[in-house]
Parts: sequence; C-alpha cells; structure tokens
Amino acid sequence: MHIGVLTGGGDCPGLNAVIRAVTKALVNECGAQVTGIERGFLGLVERRVRPLGLREVSGILHLGGTILGTHNRADPFRYVGAGGVDRSAQVMDYVRELGLDAVVVIGGDGSMSIAHRFGQLGLPIVGVPKTIDNDLMHTERSFGFDSAVAVVTDAIERLETTAQSHGRVMIVETMGRYSGWIALEAGMAGAADVILLPERPYDLDAVVQRCREREAVQGYTIVCVAEGTHARGAGMTVQARLADSPDPLRLGGVGHLLREQLQQRLGSEVRSTQLGHLQRGGSPTAFDRVLATRFGYHAAQLVAQGRFGHMVALEGSCCTEVPLGDVAGRNRTVPPDHPLLQAARGLGICLG
Amino acid sequence: MHIGVLTGGGDCPGLNAVIRAVTKALVNECGAQVTGIERGFLGLVERRVRPLGLREVSGILHLGGTILGTHNRADPFRYVGAGGVDRSAQVMDYVRELGLDAVVVIGGDGSMSIAHRFGQLGLPIVGVPKTIDNDLMHTERSFGFDSAVAVVTDAIERLETTAQSHGRVMIVETMGRYSGWIALEAGMAGAADVILLPERPYDLDAVVQRCREREAVQGYTIVCVAEGTHARGAGMTVQARLADSPDPLRLGGVGHLLREQLQQRLGSEVRSTQLGHLQRGGSPTAFDRVLATRFGYHAAQLVAQGRFGHMVALEGSCCTEVPLGDVAGRNRTVPPDHPLLQAARGLGICLG
Amino acid sequence: MHIGVLTGGGDCPGLNAVIRAVTKALVNECGAQVTGIERGFLGLVERRVRPLGLREVSGILHLGGTILGTHNRADPFRYVGAGGVDRSAQVMDYVRELGLDAVVVIGGDGSMSIAHRFGQLGLPIVGVPKTIDNDLMHTERSFGFDSAVAVVTDAIERLETTAQSHGRVMIVETMGRYSGWIALEAGMAGAADVILLPERPYDLDAVVQRCREREAVQGYTIVCVAEGTHARGAGMTVQARLADSPDPLRLGGVGHLLREQLQQRLGSEVRSTQLGHLQRGGSPTAFDRVLATRFGYHAAQLVAQGRFGHMVALEGSCCTEVPLGDVAGRNRTVPPDHPLLQAARGLGICLG
Amino acid sequence: MHIGVLTGGGDCPGLNAVIRAVTKALVNECGAQVTGIERGFLGLVERRVRPLGLREVSGILHLGGTILGTHNRADPFRYVGAGGVDRSAQVMDYVRELGLDAVVVIGGDGSMSIAHRFGQLGLPIVGVPKTIDNDLMHTERSFGFDSAVAVVTDAIERLETTAQSHGRVMIVETMGRYSGWIALEAGMAGAADVILLPERPYDLDAVVQRCREREAVQGYTIVCVAEGTHARGAGMTVQARLADSPDPLRLGGVGHLLREQLQQRLGSEVRSTQLGHLQRGGSPTAFDRVLATRFGYHAAQLVAQGRFGHMVALEGSCCTEVPLGDVAGRNRTVPPDHPLLQAARGLGICLG
Repeated sequence: MHIGVLTGGGDCPGLNAVIRAVTKALVNECGAQVTGIERGFLGLVERRVRPLGLREVSGILHLGGTILGTHNRADPFRYVGAGGVDRSAQVMDYVRELGLDAVVVIGGDGSMSIAHRFGQLGLPIVGVPKTIDNDLMHTERSFGFDSAVAVVTDAIERLETTAQSHGRVMIVETMGRYSGWIALEAGMAGAADVILLPERPYDLDAVVQRCREREAVQGYTIVCVAEGTHARGAGMTVQARLADSPDPLRLGGVGHLLREQLQQRLGSEVRSTQLGHLQRGGSPTAFDRVLATRFGYHAAQLVAQGRFGHMVALEGSCCTEVPLGDVAGRNRTVPPDHPLLQAARGLGICLG
Repeated sequence: MHIGVLTGGGDCPGLNAVIRAVTKALVNECGAQVTGIERGFLGLVERRVRPLGLREVSGILHLGGTILGTHNRADPFRYVGAGGVDRSAQVMDYVRELGLDAVVVIGGDGSMSIAHRFGQLGLPIVGVPKTIDNDLMHTERSFGFDSAVAVVTDAIERLETTAQSHGRVMIVETMGRYSGWIALEAGMAGAADVILLPERPYDLDAVVQRCREREAVQGYTIVCVAEGTHARGAGMTVQARLADSPDPLRLGGVGHLLREQLQQRLGSEVRSTQLGHLQRGGSPTAFDRVLATRFGYHAAQLVAQGRFGHMVALEGSCCTEVPLGDVAGRNRTVPPDHPLLQAARGLGICLG
Repeated sequence: MHIGVLTGGGDCPGLNAVIRAVTKALVNECGAQVTGIERGFLGLVERRVRPLGLREVSGILHLGGTILGTHNRADPFRYVGAGGVDRSAQVMDYVRELGLDAVVVIGGDGSMSIAHRFGQLGLPIVGVPKTIDNDLMHTERSFGFDSAVAVVTDAIERLETTAQSHGRVMIVETMGRYSGWIALEAGMAGAADVILLPERPYDLDAVVQRCREREAVQGYTIVCVAEGTHARGAGMTVQARLADSPDPLRLGGVGHLLREQLQQRLGSEVRSTQLGHLQRGGSPTAFDRVLATRFGYHAAQLVAQGRFGHMVALEGSCCTEVPLGDVAGRNRTVPPDHPLLQAARGLGICLG
Repeated sequence: MHIGVLTGGGDCPGLNAVIRAVTKALVNECGAQVTGIERGFLGLVERRVRPLGLREVSGILHLGGTILGTHNRADPFRYVGAGGVDRSAQVMDYVRELGLDAVVVIGGDGSMSIAHRFGQLGLPIVGVPKTIDNDLMHTERSFGFDSAVAVVTDAIERLETTAQSHGRVMIVETMGRYSGWIALEAGMAGAADVILLPERPYDLDAVVQRCREREAVQGYTIVCVAEGTHARGAGMTVQARLADSPDPLRLGGVGHLLREQLQQRLGSEVRSTQLGHLQRGGSPTAFDRVLATRFGYHAAQLVAQGRFGHMVALEGSCCTEVPLGDVAGRNRTVPPDHPLLQAARGLGICLG
C-alpha cells in the first residue's frame, strides 16, 4: 500500500501531529509506504514529493506549522502557476506514476472541495478537517482552534492590564471571517465585557452603553471582535470597504473601525489590537495535539479499511466520518441559540 | 431566592470560574442572593460564610484555586474537628437559619456523596463536577483536567531535552490514583514512548524492551506513569507499600520504584520526576475556563428551574445533568478499548 | 515620615513590584506612612490619593500594569484638563496639605522631567526609571524591558512556523520609537534574519538581498523592525507620514511599509505583524520582578537617607543613583559599536 | 583553522545557543572548520565527533539541552569507562589526529578544571561558563540561570493557589547544592514568605514563627528552599544523611525534612514539592538566549585572537574573560551582605 499525505490552505497548529499519526499508524499497522506531498496540492502539480517514514515524523508532534509546507492558492483545477489552467489530468497522471493508492488530505473548506473533485475523478481520498476558525461543517471541533483560543485569551489578559492602568476601552480583533467561534470562546475565557461576532451585526448604541456601564463600575472595558463582524445597517463589511481601497497603508480592520466609532461616542481613550498571524503560529496546545493525533489515527484506519471519500469528524467525543461532498464549500456558524451565547448573556456580556 | 455555594475537596483550576458564573447568572437572571460558604462543607459546620455579589466575583475567572477556600476532610457526617461526630443536624439548622433555598456544591466524588446525603435530609442540592483526574462518572470531561494535562505535557517537553542530552530514561509521574486519564492524554501530547496506567498493571519486561528499542533508535526514552499504577503481579501498589512505611523520608512513588527497576535492568541512567501539586495549581487553560463557565451557568439554570438532586455533566459537547446518586462513590476508569488507547498502540507506544 | 508614590507615563510590567517594594520597605524599615497617588501626576492635580499599607501591596508583585493607575498626558505644568494651564502651584499646596515629606516618582523620560521641575520647586523627589524601550539615560537596564523582549521573542517564534510553512517573508514590528533595544534583543533571541533599528536607516537593497539569500537557503525570512525605523534617504519617518494623514484607517507602521516595499521587489509573499500593546501588558518576567523589587527597595533607602533629586539606576549589576537633571529629556540609543550589534554582524544577521 | 566544540556536565538551557554562536562566528568571520565533540569530554576519549556547519546549527537557538550531548562523569583523567584510568594522553593524540587548533569547552566548574588541565598539557582552550546555579567564580551571571529562575517562579505561583485554597504551608525545593542564587531570585520573584539558602543554616524557630505570622495575616505561607540548605546545628546536611541511607525509596530532600519539622511544630498542613529536573530542561528564556549568544560570540573572538586559557565571563554588562585557573574548583556563594538579601530583609522575608 502506498499512501500520499498533503496539507492544504493556511497553516494551523497540529498539522504535524496529524502527519505524524497518519504516517506512524500506516507504517506500523499496515506496513504502508507513505509519501509526503509538498506545499499542498501544488506538490501534485509541480511534482514535489518526499518519502515519510518513522524517522521523518519523529520529534514533530509539538511543532507548529507543517513540515510538508502548504499553499493558500493551490487548486490544480485552476493552477495559478499557469494562469488558471486546469491541471487535474496531469495530477491524476502523476498520482498513477507514483503508484499512490490513496491520498490523505489535511485541509479546510477549500481543500476538501478540491479533494472531493479529485475523488470524483477516481482518486481515493480521506480528508482530515483543519480549521483554526472551527467553522467546518459536521465536525464539532477541529485541531488548531484550541491553540488559537489560547493565544487570544492570553492576549486579552495582557491587554487588560493596560486597559485597567489607563482606564481605557481595549479592543482585540481576532480571526473569524465568517464565524465567531474564536472570538466567542476567547472572549468568554478572557472575561471580555463585549463580544462581537460575524453572525450578528452589532448595534453601536448597545456597545457604547455597555462601555459606559463598565467605565462606571470598573473603569475600563474589554471588547473582543471577530474580523468578519460588521455594524448593523452598515451595508457592507469592513473587509469589503478595505478591498475597495487602493492605499497600502489602509490596513485597519473592524477593530480599528470600531475604535474610531467608540472614540467619537465615548470621548475616552480607545485602543485596538489586531492579533493577526499570531493566532495560527506556534506549538499546539496539549488538547490540539491529542485531537490531531486522534484525527490522524482515524484517517489511517479509514485508509486501512478502504473507506474513501470521507472526512474525519468529531461528534461528541468520538471520531467518526462524513462524506466529503457534505463538507465542501460550506461554513459552520455560531447558531443564535448556542449554549455558550446563552451563558454569555446570562453573565451580562454584551453581544452587540 | 437565596443560594449557597461551596467548593469541596482538593483545589482545581476553574473553581473560581464556576463560582463566578453561578453567581453572575443567579444575580443577573434570578435576582438571587448568593452566599459563599468557606472551606467546603467545613464552613457549614463552623458557620463561616460571606456574601457573593457581582463585585466579589469580578476579576477571578483566571485565578487558580478557590476564593472560598476548600478542605480535603470536611465531612459534616464525620466531623474531624470533633473526633468524627455527625454534625449534619447542626448543618441543617444553620442552612435554615441562613435561609438558603439551595446549595451549589462544586466538588468531586467525595463531595457529591456528602451532597447526596444532605439531599436525602431535604437540602436542595445542585452539584458541579470537579476532578482534575477526570474520573467522575457520567461526565465525559471536567474542568481542571485540561489544565493538568497542559502542565504535565509542558513538563514532559522540558524533561525530554535533558533525556536527549544525557541519553537517559526519564520517568514522569503524574496524578491519577485510580484512573490514568492525565497520564494517557499528557503522555500522548508529550510524545512519551511508554505510558503506564492504574487500569493496567505493567509488565516490567515489556517496558524494559521498549526502553532498549528507543535507546537504539533515538538514544533516550520518555516514560509517563500515573501515580496509582503498579507492576503486574506486584501484589500491592506502591501506595500501599508506602502507607505501611513509618519513615517520613520514604517518599518515592511508583516513578521512583520504576526508576530502581529500570536502572537495575538497563544498566543506563534513569531519572524520575514526581510532578505533584504543580498539576493542580495555577491559572486554568482557556478550555477549562470556558467549560467551568458553562458548568456554572448550567448549575444556575438548574437552580432557577428547581431541578435539584442532580450534578451537571458533559455529554458529547452538551451540558446535561445526572442524578447525584448515580455519581457518588464511583470512579470512571480508562476502558481497555478506549479510542485513545487504540491510537497509542497504533503509534507504537508501549502501554506496559 | 509620610511618603507619596506615583506611577507616570505608559504602563509597564513591574510597576506594581516597585510600588510593593517601596511601600513594604518604607513601612517595615522606617515606620513611614505611604500614600498612593492615582493616575500619575494627574492625581496631584485632581486630588486623588489613597493610603498604601502592607495589606494594599500584598499579592500584587506578579500583576501587570499599575494598581495606582497612570496617564500618558498628565503634566501639571501644562494641565490638559484645563487647556494647558500651569497647575504646579496647586500641586505644591496639595502636597503640603497632605503633609508629604517626599514623593517617589516611577516613570520614564517625561515623568523624570516633571519630577525634576517639582524638585526645583522644593519637592523632595526620588525617581525610579520605567521604560519598556530601555532607552533612559544612565541606567543600563530597566524593568519591563525583559518582559517586552520575552513577548516579542515568543511572537517571532509563533510567526516563524507560518513563515516556514508558507515560504514567506515575515515582518514583526516592535516598539521602539527612538531606540532599537527591543528589536535588537528580541531579534537576536528569536533568530531573526534581519534586524532594523531607528538608530540606523535601512538600505532596502541590503534587506532585499538578505531575503533572497535566506529564501535560497531556508525558504523563508524573519525580519524584526522597531517602529521608529525608517528607510535610508526616505526623508521622513513613517510616523511623520502617518501623522500627516487624516485617514483613520491608515494605520500601518514601518512594518506595513516595508511589506509593500519587499513584496514589490521580491515577488513573493510578505506578511507583517504589529505587536502593539501586547508588548507592554501582562505579568512581568521573573527577571523584571527582581529588578523592579531592587529598584523599589533602593528608592526607599534613598528616601530613608534623605538623598533626594536622584533617580535610581542600574550600573553593571549594582543599584546606584543619578541626578534627575542628568536624565530628563534625553534618550539612550544603541551605539553603533555595541557588542550585541557586533555579535549580530558576526552571526550573519542583516542590520539594514 | 580547525576548532572543536564540546558541552560538558549537566545540561542547561542555552547550550545550543552558544554552540550556534561559536560556530556561526568562527565560520563567518574566520572561515574556520568546526567539529562538534559528542557527550562532553567523553567524545574525545571515545572518538565521537561530527562536523558543525551553518546548516547544522540552524534552528537550534531555542532548543533546550545540547545537540552534542553531554555527560556528567566524563573526566578523561579518570575515565570511568576503564575503571578510572588516565586517558588524557590518548585524548591529546586524538586532538592532534583531528588537527584541532583549539577546543571551546562549554561547561561548569568541573569541566573548567578538566579544560585547565588539558590547557597545561598544551591544548589551546577557551572556556564558556555554564551553570544553572549561577555559582561559577568571576562571572556575575551565566546562561541557564534566568531560565531556571523562571521555571521556579512559575512553580511557586502555581503552588500558591493551592496553598491559599487550603490554608497550607507550601515548600518548594529548588536546585542549589552549594549556593542559593536560584532560591533567592525565584523566591523574591515568586513572593515567597521564607527563603532558605545553603549559605545560611536556618533556625527552625524563626521559620516556625514566620509561618505563624503569615497564617494569621494571609492564612498560608510559601517557603522556598535550596536543596543544599540545612538546619542550624543539624550537624550534617540532608544530602549527607540521605547518602548514608541504603533505601531506594528514601528520596526526600531538605524540602521533605522541613515539611516534617514544620508539620510537627505547626499542627497545620504542610506540603513540599521538589522541582528537580524541571529546572534544567526546556527552551531558554529570551534573556538566556541573548546572553548565551554573546558568550558564544565572545568565545569565537578569543579563538580568533589566539587568547587561550581563558573562560568567558560577564562583568557588569560586559563580556570579558578570566584565566581558567582562577575558576576551576571554586564556587561563588551568596555573600551575607548581598543587596538582594538586604532587600529581602527590608521586605520582611524570613531568611531563616
């Protein structure tokens, strides 16, 4: 048995833990040959692979990023290296040449879509969900999310000391273009006073009022806002506005916009911090290492059982799998009646 | 409505997060009066209570330990302060005097047993599970466990650099008297080569063989062992042997015993570290803060709904509740077919 | 003896450690009465003070920020609350009313200037240097700096995993408007390939060349740049250009500018992260706690000995003191022949 | 030019940073060939070396331990592998065979003694001080110490939450067989109430009294004690007593002894934690990375200048060097009038 492994999309803490678990399990339990494909699907187009054995995956469990490399825009069906041409046929040829019996694709939404299309071309695929934002369909949690939440929570705690010392409103802008899971969990863990999510356009008046209340009680306010959030009735998101802008120095996101809005209304000092790439780098938390290892082992089992066309998923506390077609191209958002939102409300947190 | 809150048993990261969530939710959603009971059930015997309001529970989410204090041996049915006398009647009097409509008991196995007995005497109780060892029945996970696993994982990483530099076998002894959850998850997250659990007496020969293999491949070995583990056929646990010993300097646990055994057999350097109290102190991880907050909020809801005699529990990713009587006096151990054990085997980890 | 204590300027990890040490030492060794002045010099204008005793300073050693509060623009000689009017006379009256025998001023460059002027008006002053940037004259190191360097180093490590996975140039923009100490030490500790400082305008060609070399050798590049840095021949700093800009969304600093420059020249992906307030918040490192405690204790000794008009300073590994007038209004920059710059060059780091 | 590099004695955070800096500087600035000697001086006896180039030392700055390996008992003058025979002549032969022009020895007290003897046999040596305990003569600070202090400080903070919750006396036993630097700095940074050092046998009555005072004021006490500390008039150290003991389970150090003493006298709960190897493993702090890099660069400069027979040292904030003969076989203890001890007294800390 000869299995390929690739990591696609943005990097994420825990990718190496999956690579390690898949490889070790395939080698130990199936005596398989494993080949690492470099820089996501790009490696299949540009023919960049390397062997993965027990030695190659030793000592990588705790490393952030991916030893295989990855690429954000690496769709062989629209290969950017050649002006958007479809190179899927060449990929299929290459896969046959290599003699791959299946490919384990560790990636997000986009990677699962590509994987699904290759599956339809006859390539046996097992998917492993990777999303820092925790917004893939049909899996309750994915590795990387816990690590991102830990980074944001730590940042909120640091910023709080400054907010407190200066009597300021401090805004933390987190990742989450379409879903607010990171902002919600980190906001709860960091004791934010206001948590704003893409799922729910915020009412500036409500935020202003909450800041005034906190000012009166504790002298400062902590606001945690996901990057994809926009103001109620604002018509278009900050991202959209920024995309229109030709100026390279116009870099503020929703955090900076909200800062301007609040500063005007409150007459007090407001500061904003955009955490950016800090949220996706670094060593995974213990939780993510265990989850990524379980995902990797489960993927190897699916390969061993010949159950292709599925993505590994977490249901409750169990690893299971869902058809790739059910996952591709969709986002899991925070439902309005989610228990954590209810708890947030019960604790008096302003949700915009 | 007037509600008492107490924390019982050993301290645990996340207790303050529960106290905060219970109090905030009861005050905000029910307009309740909340009273903190000091040092666990001892406070009900010794009449030590204090009011808990929004101000008292502000700024405590991230703090380790419990602002209410706790006590390991605080059973009013066998009050140690008076030679083991039953003081439950006085407690019931005091509860009536205070005018408490219910008591939220945050604690482990032992505390739930005591709470259950008070429930039988007519005191409305809501339990919140607290166990670093993660071994309470009917809840898949409890707060504090993730924090303990994080500490142990970090310790394994530190010790590995020394193991590697000196070419040693390094043993890490974790908490877990009856169940091996911490050793299992932290061993997986820390890339241990050998993981030994109380649920499965270890075969010294198997451990020795694994150490020799790792010595040959990478020059050192990491062993993660739970304190309650014992050797196959050893007849009695190390704890039992130590309990027999009158000598105050005889303090080694299973880690030290295993060190002696391995050093004899391997002829190479073996070192052991007992992490002890480090595993239960300090600030909770973001994960534990969120879980503890959810538990606390759920407990407040149970109080509001008058659903007494239950303990909050986690089932899959949902908060639910189980009758106190089903929890008391039992331990949840790692089942032999647990997926994480299977994954460990698949990755080539020696389980003794 | 009745002594006032205030913290001025931006917050900084270790302020509370100084407050604690000053207060404990004055109370224990001199039986002094200590009064905390709130929000920097503002408290002397707005008459906001509170007593500081052993109890008030207990448990604050590890806390970031300052329990007394601080304010960035709080010069009583130009009181912003009243349109820039000189309120120094009222401050002197208030100090007399309170019966303060001396004031310990914990602050930076600006605070020392104000303190010096009050000293000239007859107020006995002891200064304690506070500067995250480490750029106060006549003290080799100040508390807060080590904590800031630790935060930046940690951030570089996180960002490196992403740089590596994607094959990118990653830019980290640190604090340091006039001096590059943070960027230099954190860049060294974080194994940056390029370190750019305000003291030395960078040559874009040199940076581009270094990025190309690193790209060839390791596939990615880490650039650490202090906020006050500007390109050679650029005429004016980014700060100056931004100050001119009326647009609230124009928020990029030198990091973003450099990103644009490099992206154009390299044709590869470049990302920039501005760490901002993360660098000044949070709990101080052990090093800073010890240094701040030593500074605080030394300040108390100066008070006890009646040696006013001085600022505590670190010379080698010894606490000493320098006249306030020698410190006020000057910055300590990285000299071109500094040993650490030499080491950086010897290790092949590009300094622009 | 062909230079050998070895790391001797116990491992220590920062060793790899030195190896990297020495190698990079020698290659970049002198075009030297560098050879890594494995497992300390043992590698010179057992002829285990490997080439060190820019590639080999890339990416190791942040790693704990030493990529070259080390060994605690590796004196070629008394080679344990051959029953204590003198193998120094064979080492000198091997050095000539390899064509080494000099050897950089990174190590502690013992390694410097061996290096000094080889120097007397004609081998050009440059020493780099390595001591977690910070007790080498003539250097004010060495790398690894800051990292150890950080670990201990973090541990004290964790343990304090448990002490507080249970109202206990918590004892933390740190490294420091002959000198108390770690216990002193970490005790100060961790806000310990009692700090006990090897330099000053403690008076049990004084410790008991301090515990009673803290019990009354804050309900718990934190004691930080260095492993080499002994009670006043105790005649012999705990180490000595333990060395006499034949029982493998007798593993308690001074922390456990003190626990017994205090528990007897106080009648309250006392717990002790021995941090052990945790203090020497793991990634170095930013401070230690910079210091180790400076030491390594300075060592390369000494080699380049042909200034052999010296050990790099820190004097104030400057790198300098001292004759190897002045360092060998001596310890730097905490002097009774050290400013930090004075500060500790001023803050009301009990020093036994």
